[in-house]
Amino acid sequence: MTGEYSVLGKRVKRNDAVARVTGEAIYAEDIYLPGMLYGAILRSPHAHARILNIDTQKAERLHGVKSVITARNGVHPSASSVLAGEEVLYAGQKIAAVAAVDKYIARRAANLIEVEYEILPAVFDTIEAMKADAPVVQASRHPTRNNICSFSRKEHGDIEQGFRQADIIVENQFDIGMAHQSYLEPHACVVDMDSSGKLTVWTTTQGQFGVRTGLARFFNMPLNQVRVIGTEIGGGFGGKTGLILEPIAAMFAMATGSPIKLVMSRQEEFVDARPGPGCVVNIRTGATKDGKLVAQQVESFFDTGVSAGAPVGFFDRTRGLYRIPNFEVDIYSVYTNKIVPGAYRAPGALEITFAFESQMDIMANELGMDPIDFRLLNAVDEGDLTVDGKPYPPIALKESLKQAKAYISSLGKKSGIGIACGKWMNAVGTSSVLMSLHEDGSLNVISGAINLTGVNTSLAQMAAEELGLPLESVRVLTLDTDAAPPAAVSGGSRTTYGMGLAIRQAAADLRRQLIEFATGFLNIEAEQLELAEGYVCSTKGERIHVAELAQRAMQSNRGPLTARGSASDPSWLTNSHIFITQVAEVTVDAETGRLDIQKISSFQDVGFAINPMSVEGQIQGGIAQGLGWGIMERLIFHDGIVLNDNILDYKIPTALDVPELAPVIIEVPSVDGPYGLKGVGEPSMVVTPAVLANAIYNAVGVRIKKTPLSQDNILMGLSKNPKNGLSRNT
Amino acid sequence: MTGEYSVLGKRVKRNDAVARVTGEAIYAEDIYLPGMLYGAILRSPHAHARILNIDTQKAERLHGVKSVITARNGVHPSASSVLAGEEVLYAGQKIAAVAAVDKYIARRAANLIEVEYEILPAVFDTIEAMKADAPVVQASRHPTRNNICSFSRKEHGDIEQGFRQADIIVENQFDIGMAHQSYLEPHACVVDMDSSGKLTVWTTTQGQFGVRTGLARFFNMPLNQVRVIGTEIGGGFGGKTGLILEPIAAMFAMATGSPIKLVMSRQEEFVDARPGPGCVVNIRTGATKDGKLVAQQVESFFDTGVSAGAPVGFFDRTRGLYRIPNFEVDIYSVYTNKIVPGAYRAPGALEITFAFESQMDIMANELGMDPIDFRLLNAVDEGDLTVDGKPYPPIALKESLKQAKAYISSLGKKSGIGIACGKWMNAVGTSSVLMSLHEDGSLNVISGAINLTGVNTSLAQMAAEELGLPLESVRVLTLDTDAAPPAAVSGGSRTTYGMGLAIRQAAADLRRQLIEFATGFLNIEAEQLELAEGYVCSTKGERIHVAELAQRAMQSNRGPLTARGSASDPSWLTNSHIFITQVAEVTVDAETGRLDIQKISSFQDVGFAINPMSVEGQIQGGIAQGLGWGIMERLIFHDGIVLNDNILDYKIPTALDVPELAPVIIEVPSVDGPYGLKGVGEPSMVVTPAVLANAIYNAVGVRIKKTPLSQDNILMGLSKNPKNGLSRNT
Repeated sequence: MTGEYSVLGKRVKRNDAVARVTGEAIYAEDIYLPGMLYGAILRSPHAHARILNIDTQKAERLHGVKSVITARNGVHPSASSVLAGEEVLYAGQKIAAVAAVDKYIARRAANLIEVEYEILPAVFDTIEAMKADAPVVQASRHPTRNNICSFSRKEHGDIEQGFRQADIIVENQFDIGMAHQSYLEPHACVVDMDSSGKLTVWTTTQGQFGVRTGLARFFNMPLNQVRVIGTEIGGGFGGKTGLILEPIAAMFAMATGSPIKLVMSRQEEFVDARPGPGCVVNIRTGATKDGKLVAQQVESFFDTGVSAGAPVGFFDRTRGLYRIPNFEVDIYSVYTNKIVPGAYRAPGALEITFAFESQMDIMANELGMDPIDFRLLNAVDEGDLTVDGKPYPPIALKESLKQAKAYISSLGKKSGIGIACGKWMNAVGTSSVLMSLHEDGSLNVISGAINLTGVNTSLAQMAAEELGLPLESVRVLTLDTDAAPPAAVSGGSRTTYGMGLAIRQAAADLRRQLIEFATGFLNIEAEQLELAEGYVCSTKGERIHVAELAQRAMQSNRGPLTARGSASDPSWLTNSHIFITQVAEVTVDAETGRLDIQKISSFQDVGFAINPMSVEGQIQGGIAQGLGWGIMERLIFHDGIVLNDNILDYKIPTALDVPELAPVIIEVPSVDGPYGLKGVGEPSMVVTPAVLANAIYNAVGVRIKKTPLSQDNILMGLSKNPKNGLSRNT
Repeated sequence: MTGEYSVLGKRVKRNDAVARVTGEAIYAEDIYLPGMLYGAILRSPHAHARILNIDTQKAERLHGVKSVITARNGVHPSASSVLAGEEVLYAGQKIAAVAAVDKYIARRAANLIEVEYEILPAVFDTIEAMKADAPVVQASRHPTRNNICSFSRKEHGDIEQGFRQADIIVENQFDIGMAHQSYLEPHACVVDMDSSGKLTVWTTTQGQFGVRTGLARFFNMPLNQVRVIGTEIGGGFGGKTGLILEPIAAMFAMATGSPIKLVMSRQEEFVDARPGPGCVVNIRTGATKDGKLVAQQVESFFDTGVSAGAPVGFFDRTRGLYRIPNFEVDIYSVYTNKIVPGAYRAPGALEITFAFESQMDIMANELGMDPIDFRLLNAVDEGDLTVDGKPYPPIALKESLKQAKAYISSLGKKSGIGIACGKWMNAVGTSSVLMSLHEDGSLNVISGAINLTGVNTSLAQMAAEELGLPLESVRVLTLDTDAAPPAAVSGGSRTTYGMGLAIRQAAADLRRQLIEFATGFLNIEAEQLELAEGYVCSTKGERIHVAELAQRAMQSNRGPLTARGSASDPSWLTNSHIFITQVAEVTVDAETGRLDIQKISSFQDVGFAINPMSVEGQIQGGIAQGLGWGIMERLIFHDGIVLNDNILDYKIPTALDVPELAPVIIEVPSVDGPYGLKGVGEPSMVVTPAVLANAIYNAVGVRIKKTPLSQDNILMGLSKNPKNGLSRNT
């Protein structure tokens, strides 16, 4: 595939690397404005309580305090939308905010605010919450029957008849915990308001236009009265996609006339950000004795905290790996008195895949089949129907299974090996770029998409390829919402895909203009001209360099050469079906339960790797986060309070915890993506907890159905398990 | 004219007014970066000297000094292009520059640099400089014959025969001094370099893309490796159109790795900026006794200092008011050991108009004719030839003379009234804009043109008009060279004109897209749709709002609505001929020579006034500066050293010096400008010294041929003049 391209498909260093490692990059917390105030937030220590009184007098009297906002004190009419006024619904919920001349005074003042609470009964577990006598989570807001926030059912065939055809039926419950994205940089923002009332917002976000829209709606302002500057971002992984601190900061900017900075501590991140939700999954699967899946019934319960937030809408992106003629899938999100979760890299997919692919392993075992052969037998392929009922285009599930099988064969060992498959899709999302060709032939591409995952490097490759320019003469600039045309969040594995479509359109626009303008110098009709290697060339060999055209355009009535390109999608759904098979190689110490992961290989369809180095980095990063969620991470709540609300107790993988990660790139071109590429940001993460659970089972016969797959959980399994010891020293 | 428009032609407040008067606007000197250094420059105290030695040791040893650059010390290879190394050519020329941790240390260190000079002979006057035995200004560089820098001749008909037809011949010499633009904000810049070698430059400039091109060429860098942020500008008037401090600041940024700020003091402004050049004009004119002009011979000598800079190329834009069948015009620029001049608001035009229109007044007097009737008799009109030999489109010279005549008649007095006419054109210049229509129907227009003279307000009016949007939903943003497409300097009265053409193009692009996209919803062909009052409407009455279209585009495969428009011109010449007649009403105290100006009226063709309030402000501002140059200002050199190098000794008009200024708008549409508009930034300034000279003559019979028309010069004239006292108490 790469043969036809001169820039695409090459391993290119990320152009933001040096600035990031030298500390030159400017993050939101690095912004200092003259006269800037600092904010602090008072949060509820109770999971559910009525607020009887808030006394801010002591705080207001503290020297250096400029403003205190509560839902009740009238400093800003919109305060009650973001600060609790009558009822507190989760521990960590915002009660009041203080602006002061430095952050220490602000914090001290927040602590001086006195709140009287009347404690109310609360519930923290989805299954408990659905019971008839459970406390109502949203008492003062909009109580729902059994605390169910949302419910939907997908079904096909006849589930009863399906199970009647089954020779074996396996039923299990899986439980995946809530996990924090643990980006390096906590939420932070600075907001300033000018004399025209226009807000300027520096913030760490995956989508600056979403922040703009959110703030404009919050304050009922026109969109061009809000300027959002998405600063350099220290990771997001889905956790930086909406408003968090910005409305409060903006209210202070309006109330005081001063710029203000708000930064969340790591502790605040754990109690009031938007972690991955976690899910309990009941799954019942039937197969014939020769291994054909015939029926599957699923009930999934996403923990959505105190308000709709759990990404249940993405559920279906995870399914559709196997031909199952009869199924019934129930998807619930359930209120609990906890933080509202959000998206975490392939939202919901890791949770569901952990259940589905553990279940597949259990069934293969019951059937006495090789887990790969079992999957190959049932795997979907081109022409099979997706969960939406459309035929699949060419896909890579079988290919990835075959490559995994060949790899396992080459290892010459049978124990401690897990396999699991996964699926994800990518979005397009609102995408748009502007281009400006300079009179020396250098090109600026203006994007409004936050530069995560090295995307700007890949986009530069595309622009260079399309226009026949050397890569080093192309700069892709992520500019703020005033300067750049709208772009959706850098998330949903959409950015390279969607922005790539926009780049191709803009390049086509520019190419058309260059050729049209060149006709005047080459005296040849546009149809006989093409763009190659930086020249507009005729079939007869005449040519003119684009730099010269840019210069002449500037000096003629024609004017500067600028171009535009846009793409979007109505549904956030594309026809890109990304399949992965992962293989994990582990050993488990049967006496101590200690897990040692030697290697995780990911046989992954990427459609086409624009920059293989960047693609491999993404795959590796995803596996590492999947590994963390699988074996180490879970937010632990006690009476609704996060116990492990710090980076010492909430353990994430360090370099020492991450084994060799081997990304194996498969390229089955997407039917609608630019150059056939598919998203790579999210998919690799989806499979890892399942593949590790299956490897642990393969090593020591212990099936763990609840994350994390930690040493104590393994040891507990070992103590109960007859297979204990079988695979020692494999 | 305004009847057909809903937004254009209305009096609209400038949208940058509040930010400017409250101090909120950020000027280059307001930029502070962490670790920023401060620069200071050592300048030559001699007008012409050989540099024998530069000793920087003491400066370098001063605590806090980070770098010293001279043309010789090798700190940066390009230093010799901007710092004198062998020969100093004018007093104030840069010898060395220092970067230090604060500006006081930098200044002290600069003063510690020891330079040994060998004084060379110098010349400071153009007429002296052309003499055979005059010192050579550019000894070590490129000496030219008689210190003449450039010469060109324009001729028509037969000058000898023309003068033979004349009944009277008048010959005079006029002398207009060098004058500083006296913008409120001196030159200032901050330069930073990032780890990729990219320069970011905050600077006060009329043209940020010119600074970008200049720096890229200076350092041989690609254009997209230089980002120029034109900060809020405290006036330019032609004096902020190229590189001044930026190369030195950039060399320090490269040498030290730190950001650096360089700011010129007011004294430095007077000795080393780019003032209006001044000119000596010999003019000989012949007419028949009935007042017909038959011949004119002109020799003009622009003082161009030590290098080509005087704007002689604009000479012809000033001529062409009268039918003169035979003429010969010689245009010289002459080297002197002085600062290199540049453009000052209608460059060269004020100087020449002072000579031409004083001469016309003298001739009317000699002929015993009313000065307006004399001009009307000879004035050009539609179909007459321009100095380029093309027929004039409809023009307003006669109309402005007639309105002036009617006005003077209405006054009922005859003494102390001056009239003079003038002409100017406007450029188009490189112009380009980008537009982004938001999903709430608000619109951003991105411009790279510096927002001077309220131009962004006028451009917003145009965009609103074109798209049927309310004015308050349009924001025109001047963004930096990374974000905005190229735009020429905001100068040459081009900005509203050229950027207006680009706006119309971008609006047409957006309109076409909106209509095309709307066809899908209205099921009507594009030909039957039009844009009106914010809706795409069909002839049958169906309609859809642009906000809804923008929203739907964003959510469909179509993607965000962006648009682009570009315009330029090859020659900086348009077919816009702007004519003005001014009337000044003055009294002169015949004993003291004190001039009291009651009122200056300007009957001025503006083509079409987009924002009459802004147009009037421009006209008034121009007259005020013309008045300053006419009656108060001249840089006084002694041995090449500026004596009045401060704002106390170099007097510019205060509010107390400026009389009632009455702009009278005439609208003869330009044939190629957007909405028929013509430039208004420069023209009004052109006429004012001449009209004041003519008014003084009319008041007390004193003809002053050398600026400034100051009290002492008037008094000197009064003492010699037989008419002295005639017009007292008029």
